[in-house]
Amino acid sequence: MSAAGSTGFLHPGARHAAVIGAGAWGTTFARLLAQAGTPAVVWARREEIAAEINTGTNTRYLPGIRLPEIVTATTDIHAAVAGAGLVVVVVPAQTARGVLTPLRGVLDDDAIVVSLMKGVEAGTGLRMSQVIAEALNLPASRIAVVSGPNLADEIAAGQPTATVVAAPDEAVAVRVAALCATGTFRPYTNTDVLGVELCGAVKNVIALAVGITAGRGFGDNSKATVITRGLVEITRLGIALGASPETFAGLAGMGDLVATCSSPLSRNQTFGRRLGEGMSVAEAAAASRGVAEGAKSARAVLDLATAHGVDMPITAGVVAVVEGAATVEEVNDALLSRPRKAEGVNAAPLT
Amino acid sequence: MSAAGSTGFLHPGARHAAVIGAGAWGTTFARLLAQAGTPAVVWARREEIAAEINTGTNTRYLPGIRLPEIVTATTDIHAAVAGAGLVVVVVPAQTARGVLTPLRGVLDDDAIVVSLMKGVEAGTGLRMSQVIAEALNLPASRIAVVSGPNLADEIAAGQPTATVVAAPDEAVAVRVAALCATGTFRPYTNTDVLGVELCGAVKNVIALAVGITAGRGFGDNSKATVITRGLVEITRLGIALGASPETFAGLAGMGDLVATCSSPLSRNQTFGRRLGEGMSVAEAAAASRGVAEGAKSARAVLDLATAHGVDMPITAGVVAVVEGAATVEEVNDALLSRPRKAEGVNAAPLT
Repeated sequence: MSAAGSTGFLHPGARHAAVIGAGAWGTTFARLLAQAGTPAVVWARREEIAAEINTGTNTRYLPGIRLPEIVTATTDIHAAVAGAGLVVVVVPAQTARGVLTPLRGVLDDDAIVVSLMKGVEAGTGLRMSQVIAEALNLPASRIAVVSGPNLADEIAAGQPTATVVAAPDEAVAVRVAALCATGTFRPYTNTDVLGVELCGAVKNVIALAVGITAGRGFGDNSKATVITRGLVEITRLGIALGASPETFAGLAGMGDLVATCSSPLSRNQTFGRRLGEGMSVAEAAAASRGVAEGAKSARAVLDLATAHGVDMPITAGVVAVVEGAATVEEVNDALLSRPRKAEGVNAAPLT
Repeated sequence: MSAAGSTGFLHPGARHAAVIGAGAWGTTFARLLAQAGTPAVVWARREEIAAEINTGTNTRYLPGIRLPEIVTATTDIHAAVAGAGLVVVVVPAQTARGVLTPLRGVLDDDAIVVSLMKGVEAGTGLRMSQVIAEALNLPASRIAVVSGPNLADEIAAGQPTATVVAAPDEAVAVRVAALCATGTFRPYTNTDVLGVELCGAVKNVIALAVGITAGRGFGDNSKATVITRGLVEITRLGIALGASPETFAGLAGMGDLVATCSSPLSRNQTFGRRLGEGMSVAEAAAASRGVAEGAKSARAVLDLATAHGVDMPITAGVVAVVEGAATVEEVNDALLSRPRKAEGVNAAPLT
């Protein structure tokens, strides 16, 4: 499949999509696009991954799944994006800027860029769509975000899954949704890009906190409470930054958080569980092949909250544990001894 | 411990609390009251349960847990409530009216009644606080509701748990919260009684739907999606009835739903799983020792929604399956083939 073609983004199949990243989610998303009728060219960093995708499988990241013939792969990122109507970016959050900057000025003038990434860039504190805009010098109107309860292996297995496609312009979100919708993958649209991306970034911090409670031997009450109060504090931050509260109650917020915290495979939860069981951060990192994303993002999220005068006690607890300022027992006791108060996003402590 | 005493509801311990119902949650709540300083007299229907509680355990419903000496029990419901400052009601929803009606005019003039029950009365469609008000001829200002992610065995084991105490008058909610708060049980207050009770009634329907997807072999994406979209439809109903949207995002809404759907012991989830695996309602009822509460409430909830022009597709799907109007496959296909639309409580389908 060549990367040629020009007419009509609105005619799926008339132009191909490029998918930058060949992991489980990137490969699954390429397969969804193909199932919905658009050829997808996957960019893989490693030659052996690209070569295997061209034979119809990606056994390292998506074992047991057969890829359609119109999913192909290359290690030449310029070839992948040349002529693409849609460019999907799904690389580790901290590497996005480096991968994308060489593509500045290279994309078609009307190409839409879609982020599947979750996180905040260290140092700049920028969300992934902002990093894309800077790296590629694109206006926000050309960028969409896909986020939701989207464990890749379940989608690849054809299980019913819903997601959110967010873009500042509803029409762009609708177009992207049409390109990836299948009989079992159901996108909802949203224009609150800020809210959707905040959900994705903060949920790893909350999943880590959920893991800590599990590691201490606590059950479903504690888990549900941390998830619920965690979502309240994410929502509080989102409102302060201008996001819509409804986004946080939706699939990219609550949905993704619940799916992540239900999955025993979640890296953030596992990392938190190890801390809860008494490991130091260094020990947990050694056991987990690196520090989990939530542990990296927690400080950036807390700084953002502090700058906007937003109270995020669970995030603050995670930061304290990760930075060694408190033990998990001390954080737990501090959370339980907070003054009783009314529920809700803006509630003040009761006196 | 006699049921005497008179002065000062605001002085925990000065008057006792009556707990009507000796199951796991009633016994656990009596223990919380006692731990917080208020003697509790539990009413048990069966003599052997009352007798055992008076020896300090309730092994049938709360195995392995030692009860404080100031938790006592009786089978004489009038003796239990005589002189009580607080009357906690925790019997099966459909039996509440029958248990309470004989107590009309019997309670102290300033006694507060607290409902721990979840459900809607069949026939009348009334919420539990409304049934209490009718049966005891009390104003709403004397009734509070406690609801949240409150699996009794975890609370009894001393695990950190949060809950919601709702009453029309915030001061009443604060008083009830103070009476049951312990080092590990943390009540938040709310004045949205309608919203809190709706959450408790509808969550069983959603848990049943979650069970159906599990029974069909679907994983965490589907589960998170049903939970999230289920909460959206509960919220939509609540707004139409005058509840506060924030309640649904709180501990009694999202929190309880997540805890219930995380617990493999949930009766509603198990019932739904059996339906999803292909059992008929009769077969599932036989395997589950009766029809689960969610299957009973689903029709009443749907009728309420229809009367207010509210769309509740998941609840409608559960009703269709329970009433034999559709198979689980048909309901699943119908939910997935709905028109794509924007997220949110009031979103219309995209054209």
